[in-house]
Amino acid sequence: MNNFIYNIPVKVYFGENQLQHLSEELAKFGKRVLLTYGGGSIKRTGLYDAVVAEVKKAGMELFELSGIEPNPRIDSVRRGAQMCKEHHIDVLLAVGGGSTIDATKFMAAGAKVDHDPWDFFNEKWAPITEALPIISVLTLSATGSEMDAGGVISNPETNDKLGRVESPILLPKVSFLDPTVTYTVSAYQTACGAADMLSHIFEVYFNMDEDLYMLDCFMEGMMKTIIKYAPIAIKEPENYEARANLMWTSSWAINGFINGGKRKAWSCHPMEHEVSAYYDITHGLGLAIITPRWMEFCLSEKTVSKYVQFGVNVFGIDANQPAMDIAKQAIEKVKEFLFTTLGLKSTFTELGIGDEHIRTMARKACKDSVLPGFVPLNKEDIEVIFRNCL
Amino acid sequence: MNNFIYNIPVKVYFGENQLQHLSEELAKFGKRVLLTYGGGSIKRTGLYDAVVAEVKKAGMELFELSGIEPNPRIDSVRRGAQMCKEHHIDVLLAVGGGSTIDATKFMAAGAKVDHDPWDFFNEKWAPITEALPIISVLTLSATGSEMDAGGVISNPETNDKLGRVESPILLPKVSFLDPTVTYTVSAYQTACGAADMLSHIFEVYFNMDEDLYMLDCFMEGMMKTIIKYAPIAIKEPENYEARANLMWTSSWAINGFINGGKRKAWSCHPMEHEVSAYYDITHGLGLAIITPRWMEFCLSEKTVSKYVQFGVNVFGIDANQPAMDIAKQAIEKVKEFLFTTLGLKSTFTELGIGDEHIRTMARKACKDSVLPGFVPLNKEDIEVIFRNCL
Repeated sequence: MNNFIYNIPVKVYFGENQLQHLSEELAKFGKRVLLTYGGGSIKRTGLYDAVVAEVKKAGMELFELSGIEPNPRIDSVRRGAQMCKEHHIDVLLAVGGGSTIDATKFMAAGAKVDHDPWDFFNEKWAPITEALPIISVLTLSATGSEMDAGGVISNPETNDKLGRVESPILLPKVSFLDPTVTYTVSAYQTACGAADMLSHIFEVYFNMDEDLYMLDCFMEGMMKTIIKYAPIAIKEPENYEARANLMWTSSWAINGFINGGKRKAWSCHPMEHEVSAYYDITHGLGLAIITPRWMEFCLSEKTVSKYVQFGVNVFGIDANQPAMDIAKQAIEKVKEFLFTTLGLKSTFTELGIGDEHIRTMARKACKDSVLPGFVPLNKEDIEVIFRNCL
Repeated sequence: MNNFIYNIPVKVYFGENQLQHLSEELAKFGKRVLLTYGGGSIKRTGLYDAVVAEVKKAGMELFELSGIEPNPRIDSVRRGAQMCKEHHIDVLLAVGGGSTIDATKFMAAGAKVDHDPWDFFNEKWAPITEALPIISVLTLSATGSEMDAGGVISNPETNDKLGRVESPILLPKVSFLDPTVTYTVSAYQTACGAADMLSHIFEVYFNMDEDLYMLDCFMEGMMKTIIKYAPIAIKEPENYEARANLMWTSSWAINGFINGGKRKAWSCHPMEHEVSAYYDITHGLGLAIITPRWMEFCLSEKTVSKYVQFGVNVFGIDANQPAMDIAKQAIEKVKEFLFTTLGLKSTFTELGIGDEHIRTMARKACKDSVLPGFVPLNKEDIEVIFRNCL
């Protein structure tokens, strides 16, 4: 069992109307705030007005950067870092989902350096030693960016989509999680968010490192939570219980707690990043399509015990069957949940993705080497998985 | 569902040989350290030498306060607060179990005020607005003091044992959790620790507040972890997997995460504090004796659903039975675990406790009013529960 360090000093206000505490939290960090957001949805819902009112209540000077893309782009990060420098910003206020919060993290780090923020991601891997403080107001339960120290940025010029984690420097200082804010999230985005959260847990759970049983129990509990509540949230968008369970699960699926001493790298995320770098699809949808094919590819006598644990504890599959049978039923249950219950598209073909870039994407996903994870994957392996998604 | 604030900025080094990072963590807080501990066990095991070596490595000046009692007393707190003032201590280093860490928290707070530290607990309820930083090195998996913001202090002059929580002021800044340090913990203390942890979870889980399913799943996972690993740790004291699971569970059973929006007060702890205030018994043992009788007392048509959830999900009791039958079987399972599997004594009588103080203890436990919790208890109710423990 490996050692680990636990260190997640994010303060979270959870629940309805907690936003009234935003002004007092903002004021702790200075006088000048850069508000970052994506499209106009926060204006339609009234969240923008509520946030601006809090900034005023705090007596702070407000600067704004809008238009952060889904699969956020390095140009937005560059723009934000530049604004922080120009306007001597003290604190960044990200209002949105994972894309907005991810981009804001690297604006906060970019504000502290003279070089291009893309150097945080490319082969230069420029150090991140400090960042401006970030407060987030979450609008979508999915990526967990509100409580983790990482993010993923796209560079359309190079078809790259790359991630970086710097803990605890890039952790938001404070995050506001109000389940009612997610009432307006569409059925499709709710489904993609659920797939993303599930994948965050799968990436850690499916791992042959010896680790803490206690954490496996927690992961199984979170998977059951998503499976129970995502369909409810889709059918009844204003079901508080469902939205609340999904929201708090999104944070804990990726904040690092469940990792414990597990060190194996992730598998589906790096593969999906290649697909969304080339095709700009929704991250959670890409994961939903890839995940069951990855599970099928990795199933062997060596790994079957993990599938059995998963199938029995999460889906309640009868344990008195041959291990391989349980494992295959478990994978079918995952497909059924993603493609039938959540109603997500199940193939690349349905998204208009052909095999034109498959070889390149496979090569890039493993950096022409091996993707070390649950089962190590080379470019040929990844190509097989991608082809099975067509 | 109630709102809540999550804020647990404790950094935890988990695993073997993590103590090598103690010097760098200590050095962040200043030059003068007060080392606090209980009896001589840390000298016998070599932990004392290892800790002192780290203090030296950090180039810090060392002061020591030893002899902190199990059920730590206000006199120790007074002594520690006084030493902090006299020697201009920058950081406190608590090496021990919950008693040592609890006492150290109030030394750290006492160092910042002019009044008697007992005023933090008595009817004056003096405010705690600041405290010296604390680092803890845990030696016993039980109270969770290493990751929570509270503690319980005894005053033998008044037969009082009172608790206080001040979050985040009293949270340790850093805690070191090395499961191998607990290899020397006796079977009896391991059992008492398990009973204490279980009680921390019961106090939150048995609660009719509507709350997050996700957190109930986590609690069930922790209960299963304790039930699985405590017997192993008792039989094989050097089983790393068992000790590690118990250690990380001890922290998460009480650090506040599982509370979510639940606001109901605790029940068994305030009752047990009265018993150990009068008889100085081990806290976990007192809880083990009281808990099943409290469960029996609180069982009714109104509360039975929670017992059913518990029995089915934690003990795997067949769900296809009348609810009351499942509930009673669940309580029997708790008794069997505590008194047979863990081998703890099952009655006050076996500890030499008679009925001489029962009325007074019951009165004090509810402060002559009502103990608001899972089921509100008045002094007559508590007296019944105490008598059922005889």
